[in-house]
Amino acid sequence: MPVGTAGTVKAVHQRELKEDIRAQIILGNTYHLYLRPGLDTLHKAGGLHQFNGWDAPILTDSGGYQVFSLSGTRKIKEEGVTFRSHIDGSRHLFTPENTMDTQRIIGADIIMALDECTPYPCSYRYAETSLQLTHRWLERCINHFKATEPLYGYDQMLFPIVQGSTYKDLRKASAETIASFGQEGNAIGGLSVGEPAEEMYEMTEIVCEILPADKPRYLMGVGTPANILECISLGIDMFDCVMPTRNARNGMLFTRNGIINIRNEKWKNDFSPIDEESDLWADKHYSKAYLRHLVTSKEILGAQIASLHNLHFYLWLTGESRKRIIDGTFARWKDQMVKAVSARI
Amino acid sequence: MPVGTAGTVKAVHQRELKEDIRAQIILGNTYHLYLRPGLDTLHKAGGLHQFNGWDAPILTDSGGYQVFSLSGTRKIKEEGVTFRSHIDGSRHLFTPENTMDTQRIIGADIIMALDECTPYPCSYRYAETSLQLTHRWLERCINHFKATEPLYGYDQMLFPIVQGSTYKDLRKASAETIASFGQEGNAIGGLSVGEPAEEMYEMTEIVCEILPADKPRYLMGVGTPANILECISLGIDMFDCVMPTRNARNGMLFTRNGIINIRNEKWKNDFSPIDEESDLWADKHYSKAYLRHLVTSKEILGAQIASLHNLHFYLWLTGESRKRIIDGTFARWKDQMVKAVSARI
Repeated sequence: MPVGTAGTVKAVHQRELKEDIRAQIILGNTYHLYLRPGLDTLHKAGGLHQFNGWDAPILTDSGGYQVFSLSGTRKIKEEGVTFRSHIDGSRHLFTPENTMDTQRIIGADIIMALDECTPYPCSYRYAETSLQLTHRWLERCINHFKATEPLYGYDQMLFPIVQGSTYKDLRKASAETIASFGQEGNAIGGLSVGEPAEEMYEMTEIVCEILPADKPRYLMGVGTPANILECISLGIDMFDCVMPTRNARNGMLFTRNGIINIRNEKWKNDFSPIDEESDLWADKHYSKAYLRHLVTSKEILGAQIASLHNLHFYLWLTGESRKRIIDGTFARWKDQMVKAVSARI
Repeated sequence: MPVGTAGTVKAVHQRELKEDIRAQIILGNTYHLYLRPGLDTLHKAGGLHQFNGWDAPILTDSGGYQVFSLSGTRKIKEEGVTFRSHIDGSRHLFTPENTMDTQRIIGADIIMALDECTPYPCSYRYAETSLQLTHRWLERCINHFKATEPLYGYDQMLFPIVQGSTYKDLRKASAETIASFGQEGNAIGGLSVGEPAEEMYEMTEIVCEILPADKPRYLMGVGTPANILECISLGIDMFDCVMPTRNARNGMLFTRNGIINIRNEKWKNDFSPIDEESDLWADKHYSKAYLRHLVTSKEILGAQIASLHNLHFYLWLTGESRKRIIDGTFARWKDQMVKAVSARI
């Protein structure tokens, strides 16, 4: 899922998302949307789809993650979490109940439970206490979700989130609790927060063995192309990550042959297309030297082209994985690709 | 002509310029291109068309204007003008001869003579002395242009530039000198530099009476939609201006009903399309409230949408003018439109 934090996938038109990148779903961040444009505007618009003109599925997180990563002084209580806006310092409270209401107003097709995303490293004691809170919040989310109706005439789904830091027994216990609610899909949070990749894979594997295989498993906030391939092999079906767009704006391109830092001098006079193997018009139309010029000159078009390229590549990578799972050639291809996409070229 | 300073019309893809805005020609700035990516890269690329993937006409200025407006300490001598780069402070010299060579390397279809663009206000004595220098430089430009060949297998045209500040006799004398060279087109410089619009129109009128009507007359750096309509009625055929793109990035939209500051609170919950009368997909797809959200949130997509809108509107305005000149309804329509497009809504 391309990440559209504030209702826009940065530097990419909705038409490009649909026709060039062929995204089937995008993500919005409740924390950002709640602060700006705000719920009054989103409600009056008839929800985020109407507001931003994206008529395919949208998933929103609960806002919890950004409260922990972006806002100033925040305080976790049983009731919920109080925090200050990173924009104007104003005080706010997110609770399991009001984050359901907020996501009803935003009107995403898939909405997420409020959880606490533990930092890394995290003591066993903190992880265990936090996990119990996350599970109590989940019950309140589900109860409130069931007690309320969608606002715009189409159904919404609520995905719960497995936590438990890097502790196997906590992850197992959490996965069992989460699976027991029988929601339409299940998510794994609290990974890709600084732990070694091996620990992320280990936790993902343990959890995927417990979460039902016939419902989508969503690994939140992951990751590099190699991370995504490894986690697909462990049973993950959905991903979101800012990496393809954020790194694009700094000139990092992901390709099937490895990672390019387009700012490097070596591309200065390389007039070959950005990606010869890609079927994206921009990859064939623009050269590496031109993109390097745009990025080093801080031209907006540089961010546009690189974002388009990276998102198109991520969607190609996951689409190709799906095809190869179906035709039975995924495992070998995955091992080759993990090496290829991780190289620096 | 949309302005593509550093080889990119800011925030707009080449595909959008061609298919959505339907630009027939874009402008590049020699000063910027000379400094970055530099002549070595542009030469190796095979010129700017190859470098930026724009296969329709390009016009480049000589670089003189930016030397006067952007660079640090600059010194005008008979030989040319020395200046310091605004990027790294390095020292450079532009002469009539080397700006022709530079524009041969950039490979624009229309290139401009090196002139001095006098500031406003400007004493008669300074304007007269400067004008004589501009005319001497023009002779050197034309001689060097004739003594050199295009580099990439297609012809280039050299347009001379009328100067003379806001002095009628100097403008007349300059226009006669410029016309006498018999180039394929002629430009008017040194206007839209701070003088009242009435003075700009007066100078334009005087000059247009002298410059041949059967060759394009190009008014450099103009202007607002009203300025453009008035100057078309005085005989101008070509314009360039950063206003549609620069102002777009600040949230100013030009429409046939007037000027919108999309940052205003009044658009916060206005979910109507950006421009209902436009045939641009983005004008119909995105709402005013969404664009306001993007611009106030400093999202790149805001600059993209507003730039697309403003350029499309400018091209519509000039295209419509052409049609109405041909069918004989321009004069009355122009008077109505000047009022309409100048209103603040």
